[in-house]
Amino acid sequence: MGSVAHVCAKAVNGNETGGKVISCRAAVLWGPKQPLYIEEVQVDPPQKMEVRLRILYSSVCHTDLGFWLGENESQQAFPRILGHEAAGVVESVGEGVTGLSEGDHVVPIFNGECGACSYCESRKTNQCERLRCKPLKTVMDSDGKTRFSLNGKPIYHFLNTSTFSEYTVLDAGCVVKIDPTAPLDKMCLLSCGVSTGVGAVWNTANVETGATVAVFGLGAVGIAAAEGARTRKASRIIGVDINPDKFIKGKTKGITDFVNPNECDKPVHEVIREMTGGGVDYSFECAGNLDVLREAFLSTHNGGGLTVILGVHPTPRMLPVHPMELMGGRSMVASAFGGFKKTQLPDFAVKCMNGEVNLEGFITHEMPFSKINEAFKLLAEGKYPVSLSRIAELDPQGNQSSNFFDWI
Amino acid sequence: MGSVAHVCAKAVNGNETGGKVISCRAAVLWGPKQPLYIEEVQVDPPQKMEVRLRILYSSVCHTDLGFWLGENESQQAFPRILGHEAAGVVESVGEGVTGLSEGDHVVPIFNGECGACSYCESRKTNQCERLRCKPLKTVMDSDGKTRFSLNGKPIYHFLNTSTFSEYTVLDAGCVVKIDPTAPLDKMCLLSCGVSTGVGAVWNTANVETGATVAVFGLGAVGIAAAEGARTRKASRIIGVDINPDKFIKGKTKGITDFVNPNECDKPVHEVIREMTGGGVDYSFECAGNLDVLREAFLSTHNGGGLTVILGVHPTPRMLPVHPMELMGGRSMVASAFGGFKKTQLPDFAVKCMNGEVNLEGFITHEMPFSKINEAFKLLAEGKYPVSLSRIAELDPQGNQSSNFFDWI
Repeated sequence: MGSVAHVCAKAVNGNETGGKVISCRAAVLWGPKQPLYIEEVQVDPPQKMEVRLRILYSSVCHTDLGFWLGENESQQAFPRILGHEAAGVVESVGEGVTGLSEGDHVVPIFNGECGACSYCESRKTNQCERLRCKPLKTVMDSDGKTRFSLNGKPIYHFLNTSTFSEYTVLDAGCVVKIDPTAPLDKMCLLSCGVSTGVGAVWNTANVETGATVAVFGLGAVGIAAAEGARTRKASRIIGVDINPDKFIKGKTKGITDFVNPNECDKPVHEVIREMTGGGVDYSFECAGNLDVLREAFLSTHNGGGLTVILGVHPTPRMLPVHPMELMGGRSMVASAFGGFKKTQLPDFAVKCMNGEVNLEGFITHEMPFSKINEAFKLLAEGKYPVSLSRIAELDPQGNQSSNFFDWI
Repeated sequence: MGSVAHVCAKAVNGNETGGKVISCRAAVLWGPKQPLYIEEVQVDPPQKMEVRLRILYSSVCHTDLGFWLGENESQQAFPRILGHEAAGVVESVGEGVTGLSEGDHVVPIFNGECGACSYCESRKTNQCERLRCKPLKTVMDSDGKTRFSLNGKPIYHFLNTSTFSEYTVLDAGCVVKIDPTAPLDKMCLLSCGVSTGVGAVWNTANVETGATVAVFGLGAVGIAAAEGARTRKASRIIGVDINPDKFIKGKTKGITDFVNPNECDKPVHEVIREMTGGGVDYSFECAGNLDVLREAFLSTHNGGGLTVILGVHPTPRMLPVHPMELMGGRSMVASAFGGFKKTQLPDFAVKCMNGEVNLEGFITHEMPFSKINEAFKLLAEGKYPVSLSRIAELDPQGNQSSNFFDWI
């Protein structure tokens, strides 16, 4: 791409940068557990069916942290630009892109929808054959190359998104156009955490009015699952976490009962079975811990109890459930991106805008992009399960507002 | 029950035996792997909400064999009368029983329905709180006692049924009244194997027209699953078994393709994925083997592929699936008694009578009750996965016809 003029992100608007390489700031990971370095990187123009975004807000999720920690060696590729929860504006679109144009307000998603494969046509799944979450994928589909480079050397993509950059390139199928009046600082919650939690309740479990629910792990995803259960008018929403600080905000998301395993003199599932006369209808495992998963499974009742796995489980251990334990009618499924298809997201964004889904309280910290390592540190300490970062130098109004949030 | 007169089964009809202890023949298991002894046992009259049946036909299932082998020590209790696949006639009913009366043609089932608990009211499950399959249960619910005895010492019940006896007592919720013109010799197939296989396809998976299906393990349950898929007009039904003899009859049950793992130079799931362009929509694990279960799981496609566990897994090994393997949208559930509720069985029996479900070919051997040990031997050899036995001295026409079948 040497023949394409480089431009500085700070000085451009969409019209001037289209078709050109953009130089901008990105947080580059050079190796596991290394500090993220804010580098001046080059971002190629979008190719066929691709879109280049200006990222205005981004957040840090446990999945970013897991990759930063190098939890799964087979998924490592360096240098790489992490980040998958964000909101921004379309800078330019590649050949063939329809339904998206310069200036559109958008949310990038790691679990895209090509719209053409049998999975996209199926009502049973949101796992597009081409654009679903593929941790091993590091390049763009169309030409097997990266759109990021540093001094001519490629920088790898991450989870179809790579949002820890002022500009990024995605497949158009991973870009959701939302209402231009939607508050972008909150909309980045829809890229992963809130969609995953609420969607697991709405789409994967399809929790009905009056149902009983237990949520294991009250990070952002867990609290979002509670919020989803609240919107479905669950009769009881039991929150389980070893950190009592998380209980306070949980109440605002409809959690009716709290269980702190450290304060129980028996296994949590026994406590929950006693509380509910045999077990809850639905449990949501949002901790990424297999021992917790087993407790979540055993906390549901026989005969139709359903456990939904939302957590990322990096260890090689297999499911801690015996096949005969399923015979009583308990079952277990996983929910990726809350079962949401990309095409459902604009409507979900409207539900968040009009307050049907309450996004208040998820964002607790606001930090500049330059402090992204501090954000990772906070997240790693477990004090704040998820953090949000306003990443751009320029927000849509032209103000300097690079901020960083934590939630819950 | 010493005050109740004992009568000999051969000399009675229903009216004469009601309310009295019946002496009759039963196959008693005195310890794991011991030969079954045909003993003259005493069968008490049915108590409140119980029914006493005259068993006319019974079959041997792998679950009987598993208990005979003593595969799970915690489930052992001796002496015990095994048997759970049968058909017969109501001899008498206890207090409070409605909808069943002397002379009714019936099928006993191990997975009953009390009709009063929340599970029976739920449309999500067939797992009645009280009358579902409980391997550890050895006595009747109402008084914690057995209805079988030998010289005054109790003989334990098995799976709510204990059909290896000319007479047996069940909870009324475990007795299905069927059309009196139904052929009882075939109707005992509905007590377990055929209901489990067909029901897993109809109720648990709800396989749709045109779907692709793989069945792992072509015993009676597996062949019944294939038959269920055939009735649902599946476009492809792949049978997997290491015994090529089982392929021949499988064709009559709609199996379109056979895979013999011993003849494959790669894992079966890779073969099936290649055959189907990515994997089948549904796989049914009917082998009771965890390595087979993993192949069945991996043989389904991402994004909505469903594996149904029908096999009984006696080893302590946990599910051989990593939680993240579920994230791609494959899922796994178990099916107990094919998801059938007792109340569905009369209609299912009609579908079998009118040929909608084809029961031909399931029964291959016919043996006298006295040869029950030979039947177990055949089953244990794996040559014949399931066997049928006409157990009664007197069939409804008064003929002596104690026979024994194997199927497939």
